[in-house]
Amino acid sequence: MNMAVAYRALSIRQDGGVLHLTLNRPEVRNAMSLAMVDELLAALNAAEADGVTRVIVLRGAGGHFCAGADLKDMAAARASEDSDPVAHTNTRFGWLCAEFARTPLAVVAVVEGTVMGGGFGLACAADVTLAHASASFRLPETSLGLVPAQIAPYLVERLGFAEAKRLAVTGGKLDARTALTLRLVHAVADDEAALSGALANVLNDILACAPGAVAATKRLIAKARLAAPESLIDEAAAAFSLAAQGSEGIEGTTAFLQKRKPSWAP
Amino acid sequence: MNMAVAYRALSIRQDGGVLHLTLNRPEVRNAMSLAMVDELLAALNAAEADGVTRVIVLRGAGGHFCAGADLKDMAAARASEDSDPVAHTNTRFGWLCAEFARTPLAVVAVVEGTVMGGGFGLACAADVTLAHASASFRLPETSLGLVPAQIAPYLVERLGFAEAKRLAVTGGKLDARTALTLRLVHAVADDEAALSGALANVLNDILACAPGAVAATKRLIAKARLAAPESLIDEAAAAFSLAAQGSEGIEGTTAFLQKRKPSWAP
Amino acid sequence: MNMAVAYRALSIRQDGGVLHLTLNRPEVRNAMSLAMVDELLAALNAAEADGVTRVIVLRGAGGHFCAGADLKDMAAARASEDSDPVAHTNTRFGWLCAEFARTPLAVVAVVEGTVMGGGFGLACAADVTLAHASASFRLPETSLGLVPAQIAPYLVERLGFAEAKRLAVTGGKLDARTALTLRLVHAVADDEAALSGALANVLNDILACAPGAVAATKRLIAKARLAAPESLIDEAAAAFSLAAQGSEGIEGTTAFLQKRKPSWAP
Repeated sequence: MNMAVAYRALSIRQDGGVLHLTLNRPEVRNAMSLAMVDELLAALNAAEADGVTRVIVLRGAGGHFCAGADLKDMAAARASEDSDPVAHTNTRFGWLCAEFARTPLAVVAVVEGTVMGGGFGLACAADVTLAHASASFRLPETSLGLVPAQIAPYLVERLGFAEAKRLAVTGGKLDARTALTLRLVHAVADDEAALSGALANVLNDILACAPGAVAATKRLIAKARLAAPESLIDEAAAAFSLAAQGSEGIEGTTAFLQKRKPSWAP
Repeated sequence: MNMAVAYRALSIRQDGGVLHLTLNRPEVRNAMSLAMVDELLAALNAAEADGVTRVIVLRGAGGHFCAGADLKDMAAARASEDSDPVAHTNTRFGWLCAEFARTPLAVVAVVEGTVMGGGFGLACAADVTLAHASASFRLPETSLGLVPAQIAPYLVERLGFAEAKRLAVTGGKLDARTALTLRLVHAVADDEAALSGALANVLNDILACAPGAVAATKRLIAKARLAAPESLIDEAAAAFSLAAQGSEGIEGTTAFLQKRKPSWAP
Repeated sequence: MNMAVAYRALSIRQDGGVLHLTLNRPEVRNAMSLAMVDELLAALNAAEADGVTRVIVLRGAGGHFCAGADLKDMAAARASEDSDPVAHTNTRFGWLCAEFARTPLAVVAVVEGTVMGGGFGLACAADVTLAHASASFRLPETSLGLVPAQIAPYLVERLGFAEAKRLAVTGGKLDARTALTLRLVHAVADDEAALSGALANVLNDILACAPGAVAATKRLIAKARLAAPESLIDEAAAAFSLAAQGSEGIEGTTAFLQKRKPSWAP
């Protein structure tokens, strides 16, 4: 649970194994302030440690997901006495992306309205992304003389190298349907009820999977992106054996033979 | 030819340069027993050495492709005296995947009905996969407390990192049409006649290509997945030169200028 | 500007920041001769150095893009006294692909008619590729006993590993609509007017982006293809900081706040 921390840029709600994190600066379309970055990292780290949370659901308040970095913070950073405050701030955002991309928990993003810059990057880092038909995706950085730098790896992971490059070079804009075609998002819902239904289905699917097995699989898949398959055979066998002979594997296969749900399933 | 080996978990048929391997345990939807793994490897190795086989066609008997690992084998492995029999068995399956994924021969999978777990992995490792509309794809591992470990690299190679991750985290299920959208399969046929026709077309296309050139190209493409393009220029030039000045290149370009089929074409 | 060089295999036209390079051997469907390779490299290098060019548009004269390598050159190479003239020639083509794939400039390919072999590779290396509905894509190499060797990395970058492998093994042919599905091309136009309109839109989008930011982003995305995301955080922060505090970042964010176009925008 995350009750000990006072969140201001986020609103937070725990529902069993699901932690709902809502970017909560609707007056600026949830632009990502430094405070928001810190709170997101604190909430993620607490969730990873609480022994209860299995899925994080990321949303934005007020009809938008996230408008990207808060330019006011950047101006403030420039005025500070740090040796390179812009790089320092940007590094912190980079770790936010990396931790959400590599957490052993499952991450679902639910996006609508503006999904820009850093918000675009978080949508790419999530394991599953569901979009309202209102979602509008944009990489405005290069048109502002800036570089979509920390999110570049997640654009490549989600869209592939060539599509990421194309979008960056053209200051890419995508509507929800095109984002579905490119598999930036995995479903598009025409209204709030359909979006809630799609989220309920995805959560049901994820919660039917054993949390330790999900974590081990995410770890292996991240390695497989950058390694020759045959180089992973021994590590994969060790991961398989550990799972199969561990409590999850025994419970899961026993439940299957007994035609009942395993202990972790809703 | 593979006539010297007695196959029990497979049925096998040679048709010129095409070796048809059929997983043949229809009573368990062709679940992959240890014996089946060993026979598949023996058949592949014999085909690579026979100087005749150019394409392997993988199918399942009885309306299903493959239901994944045989859980009975896993139970037997647990009871054995090996230091880690589960890992040992899983390693052997890993090598099966790796050898089918990296063989210099062309591999076509023809899938229908159940395509689960290890069967899903083999469908991803093949060069071309054709599906009957009945095909139903599933990664059940994480819902059983297990890890789709040995197949993870081939999920990533076939579907890309993000889609592989999404499917593993959600215990992914796909019907044939969705598998086509994700390019897990390359054609969907509505009936057996259409499937046979699609297979005949693919075999015709493959057999029109020189076997040595196909092998060299597969090798380079595997390297290109993990290397900077400019680092491969010299190796690519050597491969091109070897082919162009070898018997296949001379026959192929001569046949082209003489407006006849090359010697290897059907 | 490129006015000092006498181009014969290319025709060349500068239009502000856009350099139009047209493969100009229509009598052989713009087959890529050694002279053409050398002229393309010279034109690219001059454009990178001229301080004016921001986008290169590659086209073919006479209704075709490019029929691939010129087999006559290969025959001439075989007859030369070089130790391995075929490899030598092929290496030069490899550098052509690499330099077009990695130039800091934006590259747009506009393709129609025949798009074969090396032409297919260039279409994959471009940042954005627009197709006339007449475009017909083919990898004929393996059917000629040859290897699509230098282009293999760009097939993988554009289409992903599995699709590149499938096309190479089957001597792949694609029409324009299928090429759009596979994201080999990003738009298909039914006539010349629509193609011109699509090109104008893409050029407008690219020219709205700051050239230094585009170059830095292309560089990072190329690294992200082959690196773990977290390993790039510091480099990404440095690139972001440099851009944000450099002239482009200051002009871009200032223009945004002043609700005017930045200096580089058309």
